[in-house]
Amino acid sequence: MSRVLVINGPNLNLLGEREPDIYGRETLSDINTQMLALANELGVELDSYQSNIEGELINKIQQVNGKYDGLIINPAAFTHYSIAIRDALAVLKVPVIEVHLSNIYAREEFRHHSVIAPVVTGQISGLGSYGYLAALRTVKKLLTR
Amino acid sequence: MSRVLVINGPNLNLLGEREPDIYGRETLSDINTQMLALANELGVELDSYQSNIEGELINKIQQVNGKYDGLIINPAAFTHYSIAIRDALAVLKVPVIEVHLSNIYAREEFRHHSVIAPVVTGQISGLGSYGYLAALRTVKKLLTR
Amino acid sequence: MSRVLVINGPNLNLLGEREPDIYGRETLSDINTQMLALANELGVELDSYQSNIEGELINKIQQVNGKYDGLIINPAAFTHYSIAIRDALAVLKVPVIEVHLSNIYAREEFRHHSVIAPVVTGQISGLGSYGYLAALRTVKKLLTR
Amino acid sequence: MSRVLVINGPNLNLLGEREPDIYGRETLSDINTQMLALANELGVELDSYQSNIEGELINKIQQVNGKYDGLIINPAAFTHYSIAIRDALAVLKVPVIEVHLSNIYAREEFRHHSVIAPVVTGQISGLGSYGYLAALRTVKKLLTR
Amino acid sequence: MSRVLVINGPNLNLLGEREPDIYGRETLSDINTQMLALANELGVELDSYQSNIEGELINKIQQVNGKYDGLIINPAAFTHYSIAIRDALAVLKVPVIEVHLSNIYAREEFRHHSVIAPVVTGQISGLGSYGYLAALRTVKKLLTR
Amino acid sequence: MSRVLVINGPNLNLLGEREPDIYGRETLSDINTQMLALANELGVELDSYQSNIEGELINKIQQVNGKYDGLIINPAAFTHYSIAIRDALAVLKVPVIEVHLSNIYAREEFRHHSVIAPVVTGQISGLGSYGYLAALRTVKKLLTR
Amino acid sequence: MSRVLVINGPNLNLLGEREPDIYGRETLSDINTQMLALANELGVELDSYQSNIEGELINKIQQVNGKYDGLIINPAAFTHYSIAIRDALAVLKVPVIEVHLSNIYAREEFRHHSVIAPVVTGQISGLGSYGYLAALRTVKKLLTR
Amino acid sequence: MSRVLVINGPNLNLLGEREPDIYGRETLSDINTQMLALANELGVELDSYQSNIEGELINKIQQVNGKYDGLIINPAAFTHYSIAIRDALAVLKVPVIEVHLSNIYAREEFRHHSVIAPVVTGQISGLGSYGYLAALRTVKKLLTR
Amino acid sequence: MSRVLVINGPNLNLLGEREPDIYGRETLSDINTQMLALANELGVELDSYQSNIEGELINKIQQVNGKYDGLIINPAAFTHYSIAIRDALAVLKVPVIEVHLSNIYAREEFRHHSVIAPVVTGQISGLGSYGYLAALRTVKKLLTR
Amino acid sequence: MSRVLVINGPNLNLLGEREPDIYGRETLSDINTQMLALANELGVELDSYQSNIEGELINKIQQVNGKYDGLIINPAAFTHYSIAIRDALAVLKVPVIEVHLSNIYAREEFRHHSVIAPVVTGQISGLGSYGYLAALRTVKKLLTR
Amino acid sequence: MSRVLVINGPNLNLLGEREPDIYGRETLSDINTQMLALANELGVELDSYQSNIEGELINKIQQVNGKYDGLIINPAAFTHYSIAIRDALAVLKVPVIEVHLSNIYAREEFRHHSVIAPVVTGQISGLGSYGYLAALRTVKKLLTR
Amino acid sequence: MSRVLVINGPNLNLLGEREPDIYGRETLSDINTQMLALANELGVELDSYQSNIEGELINKIQQVNGKYDGLIINPAAFTHYSIAIRDALAVLKVPVIEVHLSNIYAREEFRHHSVIAPVVTGQISGLGSYGYLAALRTVKKLLTR
Repeated sequence: MSRVLVINGPNLNLLGEREPDIYGRETLSDINTQMLALANELGVELDSYQSNIEGELINKIQQVNGKYDGLIINPAAFTHYSIAIRDALAVLKVPVIEVHLSNIYAREEFRHHSVIAPVVTGQISGLGSYGYLAALRTVKKLLTR
Repeated sequence: MSRVLVINGPNLNLLGEREPDIYGRETLSDINTQMLALANELGVELDSYQSNIEGELINKIQQVNGKYDGLIINPAAFTHYSIAIRDALAVLKVPVIEVHLSNIYAREEFRHHSVIAPVVTGQISGLGSYGYLAALRTVKKLLTR
Repeated sequence: MSRVLVINGPNLNLLGEREPDIYGRETLSDINTQMLALANELGVELDSYQSNIEGELINKIQQVNGKYDGLIINPAAFTHYSIAIRDALAVLKVPVIEVHLSNIYAREEFRHHSVIAPVVTGQISGLGSYGYLAALRTVKKLLTR
Repeated sequence: MSRVLVINGPNLNLLGEREPDIYGRETLSDINTQMLALANELGVELDSYQSNIEGELINKIQQVNGKYDGLIINPAAFTHYSIAIRDALAVLKVPVIEVHLSNIYAREEFRHHSVIAPVVTGQISGLGSYGYLAALRTVKKLLTR
Repeated sequence: MSRVLVINGPNLNLLGEREPDIYGRETLSDINTQMLALANELGVELDSYQSNIEGELINKIQQVNGKYDGLIINPAAFTHYSIAIRDALAVLKVPVIEVHLSNIYAREEFRHHSVIAPVVTGQISGLGSYGYLAALRTVKKLLTR
Repeated sequence: MSRVLVINGPNLNLLGEREPDIYGRETLSDINTQMLALANELGVELDSYQSNIEGELINKIQQVNGKYDGLIINPAAFTHYSIAIRDALAVLKVPVIEVHLSNIYAREEFRHHSVIAPVVTGQISGLGSYGYLAALRTVKKLLTR
Repeated sequence: MSRVLVINGPNLNLLGEREPDIYGRETLSDINTQMLALANELGVELDSYQSNIEGELINKIQQVNGKYDGLIINPAAFTHYSIAIRDALAVLKVPVIEVHLSNIYAREEFRHHSVIAPVVTGQISGLGSYGYLAALRTVKKLLTR
Repeated sequence: MSRVLVINGPNLNLLGEREPDIYGRETLSDINTQMLALANELGVELDSYQSNIEGELINKIQQVNGKYDGLIINPAAFTHYSIAIRDALAVLKVPVIEVHLSNIYAREEFRHHSVIAPVVTGQISGLGSYGYLAALRTVKKLLTR
Repeated sequence: MSRVLVINGPNLNLLGEREPDIYGRETLSDINTQMLALANELGVELDSYQSNIEGELINKIQQVNGKYDGLIINPAAFTHYSIAIRDALAVLKVPVIEVHLSNIYAREEFRHHSVIAPVVTGQISGLGSYGYLAALRTVKKLLTR
Repeated sequence: MSRVLVINGPNLNLLGEREPDIYGRETLSDINTQMLALANELGVELDSYQSNIEGELINKIQQVNGKYDGLIINPAAFTHYSIAIRDALAVLKVPVIEVHLSNIYAREEFRHHSVIAPVVTGQISGLGSYGYLAALRTVKKLLTR
Repeated sequence: MSRVLVINGPNLNLLGEREPDIYGRETLSDINTQMLALANELGVELDSYQSNIEGELINKIQQVNGKYDGLIINPAAFTHYSIAIRDALAVLKVPVIEVHLSNIYAREEFRHHSVIAPVVTGQISGLGSYGYLAALRTVKKLLTR
Repeated sequence: MSRVLVINGPNLNLLGEREPDIYGRETLSDINTQMLALANELGVELDSYQSNIEGELINKIQQVNGKYDGLIINPAAFTHYSIAIRDALAVLKVPVIEVHLSNIYAREEFRHHSVIAPVVTGQISGLGSYGYLAALRTVKKLLTR
């Protein structure tokens, strides 16, 4: 059975509360519940992790090789400057999908650039919480090829 | 029953033949077949269109309002400079998903910028042909909310 | 009797429908009617043309020399990148007035730059549909000098 | 009866004498005479003002609200750097038309950018002295709507 | 009684020791003592926090809503790149004052840009330790309006 | 007894009237009244000056040395381009505090850069009219050290 | 016998008429006559095509693989922005020579950059109509190696 | 007998007092005395003028044609942004020498660019007060050719 | 006896495993063993530390003054954006050598810039694991001068 | 009989040995042999020169006027920065063809810019050693016009 | 008696012949004759040197300390890129005047920047051959202070 | 026995004399003596060369292949612009170490960029004369692997 890890970066613990006009009213827990239901349907084991501390996210990413078959990551603000997270992701040998709730290309200019995009498999941006589900389906698809 | 249009831009008629290391070996026809199967499963009517001529793509986009409930578009090279396509998309009142087969952020720098991204609902990049399927599921999801 | 051509670029066929907060509620046909009335008043013959296809606009521009005494052009989105239209205009030996309905300098930054402005006689921006009338009066003025 | 103010910036007092290849041979007084004739025809009261001192132009602009129904301004060199004039214009509640005798987009690159354009109603560039007349007609048009 | 939180970022624990020519000889503890005295005088409860770890600062900022009536923050080096701290601050519903001991605009160019400035109420720079006191007075003032 | 001068730049004479959403509804006279009250409390003599003319502001700044013990200046639009005012300030031997009513870093990008910031003691931005009072307290503080 | 295609982009149908100081007085037909004579001499079959419509040029380029042994292309204005033509050329498996009549590096700065140059075999610029002949000789040379 | 005008811009009235490490200890009056002595020796009539107000400098420059045979100008801070002074200088038909006391290329980067340099005859920078004398000798030389 | 600290930044705990084509196959432990042997030979006491958390690295750097006579640091990805680490290093009074295993100037452009380089004694890049040994010899050399 | 000079810049003496994947395996001597054969065929006298020293190349270029009827130059690395060679070429009154063996627009970005291109007749890039022959034919053609 | 060296860079040996519209018709020998006459008048010994080879100019500059009391240098094209000449000049302990015959600020943009200007005493540009004489007078002046 | 060449670029012949605050007081001869001693200890034959002429350095570099087993080069000012030296180095098949006495990243911004760094094995910057010794040890190390 495939194992997939979902990592959420800084301030995503506030989801549903923080700028709901941009990020919607669902909480991270709501999203995790939907993810688990879909994982169940697809026959995938799913773990999820959130931290506001960049280095802790790196520690978690370093556990992916050997333990997980795919990674879904929303690095939030770290998307735009954490070369350290990029370096951690570059070592992974499994599919990695970068997810953003909002359309980062329709917001402030500094959010248009992702330092991790060049080292991931693909990027989903602006689909709201459905982006996580699409990412999970994609990982499943890639693993069953 | 919802109606969705899929538009493919220049050189995508060569899919499967053009730079297969980047775009894969599936043809546009292969992708359309998969799209129709999923559309059927989701209860969606699906039309598709391809042209190498920017203005013809605009003519097609102008037909969306009133006739379709969602648009999936891979503008290919026009992604990076066709403000005319952007202007046509900006008028649409239905969900629009921008799809790229390859991860445009892992290629030449001039491909990192999409002039249409700020006016679409969301963007999917690098998921290969599965990106079209994910886009179709997303449109369905958005329409059933 | 002087002959003047009016050319309108991509998406202007949607005028009155497309983003009315920016472009107003008059249709292209409404504007043409006003133009014809003024042309009549000024003793000018007036033809008008619209296309979404860059190359067709170029074909039309290439007919100006020898057939018209002035050109009024709103290249819409092509304003910002069509060097091909610029090259076609650069050959003209008659006055050319570039018209924009909205104030392009009060919109997104990529709309502040016109690649055709350096090869036209003058530019009118932000006067709404009256801009076309002012352009027509200007051409008449220049021709009667 | 509508009242319109015309403001001319630095060095325009030299019109007809300064770089006639670029600005033409008409003097500012010639232009004012034509303006008054047209104002008369349109039933508009017209005042005009010229100064080489940025702050004096600001003082004059500050008198517009409450006293005039429209402003026509050629800020000359201040077009390109006077944020102070921009700030003064931004307070106005009447139509403001920015006029340039020459086509500023066909000259040195530093003349392509207008710091006031984003806060005016519209801009006319390159129509020679006729630009002032077109501006006056435009203001009249806007006031009679 | 109003409650205000003061947050100090990386290396400010070394104040008085680190580059005294730039930051002065007062320690963070000296500043806190002055802050408490003024808080007392103004009838404000004051908490303070320092950490060198970006994510811990974010955790603290996330506690402000509901618990404090104002925030004074000197993000030190994080001022210039921590979009994660910016995102955390953007959720706050209370006044936030950004304080810098030195005049950041008189130092290296990379210190001239603050990524958090666009989401705070105001910024005080170059007033030395008095900047914190001015910030506290400002918060008090804003809360009593 | 210390003497402090307050200088206000272009368009600040319109305060309370000009873009009240940004600058608030207090007039310059309201602010001066509050300043005088605080000056009285702190035992400081206070003069104030406003002009729309850059050179007159420079003339005033040149009188500071020998006549005043501190300067508070809001150069308004001149903040962003008047190197002449910068040069005048650079000669001063007394504390100079730069004040902006609005948070200039949350507005248009051209307002983020202050050409005078590198030569002043400190800068206060976004505290509304309270910024002037904080500046006065700061000057008093610096003079009593 | 080798087959070579010559493609000419927008406005080249006007050759001999358009800006003769820059492009010379030969017409496209004159050049084609010289090309055919040389093709005859070299034992090469030669087809030629011109269009002002970008997408029609792409359609033609897509016919090269399997049908021609070499391509000579003067994309005119499209040189500088048509990523769609670049993508079409990138698929070709035969030698491609980019030709410009004028020295594009001695003209306006926006003409110094060719978006297709990185995907062609070689570029010839500024040799006038002889550039086409040199290109034909080069293709012949490359094919006979 | 030739007549030469010397114009000095903002803050130069403070010469000898302002930043003597950069500008030296001579006053403007000292320099004028030396200038007059040299003018006498060369048989030149010399007038000099200083103002802190940009528009007054323009008024003075506008008097040069017809009244003077040469102009020596140190526009001080206006060197770097006054396009209005540039425009006034561009009309002059006599030799114009731009003088800077300090080496502007060895100071802050924003002082490296002179907006007036492209319209003057020559520029002298960094020779201290001797630069004015060299400029006067140059004008004399040019007039006697 | 001199004491030297070696600090390694994020992802260096993976050395030997992560992108061995770039970083080689030696582990961090292998390098530490070689370092200790050389330290022994040179009569230097050596401590080493690694963390993925920026703030923990800062905490460690803050302990250098008073406790160590030299610092060798490979900040890995933090090299390129951690101004916080730069600020911590700027306080040190002992020699600091920045080490990179790979030649950062032969990799992606964003790796060419080190924000800490301006505050260290020297930088060694591209010498593989030998860079650490060269750094240790250098520190020893500098301490024995 | 026409005389043509061929100048080769730095490192071209290593041709055939240096990076053969980019520059091919022919030596400079091989190319010269082919050049002489063609020169003979075309009835042109040919001299050739190579140096690694910029100033010696300039000395040689200075001999062209009066002695040669055409110049073919491959300035190699000097292409990208030798304004001194550009200045020497700008004086020539004969046709000058710039030749590059490799397609400089398909290599590192710093090789895309030629400082000499604006002062030569034409440029040939990427045709391998055939580029020299094409250049010679071009010069012959231009001389026989 | 003071000794002054005059150094002229690449292509200045062609003076009078090279682009006379820009550089005038005087030869370098004509200028040297005038220089010697003035040197005689001022009581200065004068040597002059010209080379097209950057390194030979450096060798000459290295002889200045100890042998000459002043240097006048026109580095011609090297002005814009020879950091090696800049480094050689930076060691000199005597006054150095940089001279340009033409006004480099009125020519191509790449000529506006001098890499040596920050390390010389002063710069004279656009005074024609008189610039050398003014430089010599300046050196004399500086030496007699 | 291994043979290593040391090449020193322009102005390094002045070492000990030129800007000793930056480069130290050791002469090039002092450094060579230390190099020879270490070469002896390591069992390496060492040659050294210095020139101020770029092309002579290239001539020397071209002798490395076949004659030496390693190269240590301090290109001095040429580091920042000599693409010709870069091209010469790119051909070498032996280890190349780039050495800078001072920390080039702590000096003027134009010294932060090395055009040769991407083609060398490694770079050592800021270690003073010890950098040469570290480079020699590195080459020895690499050769004995």
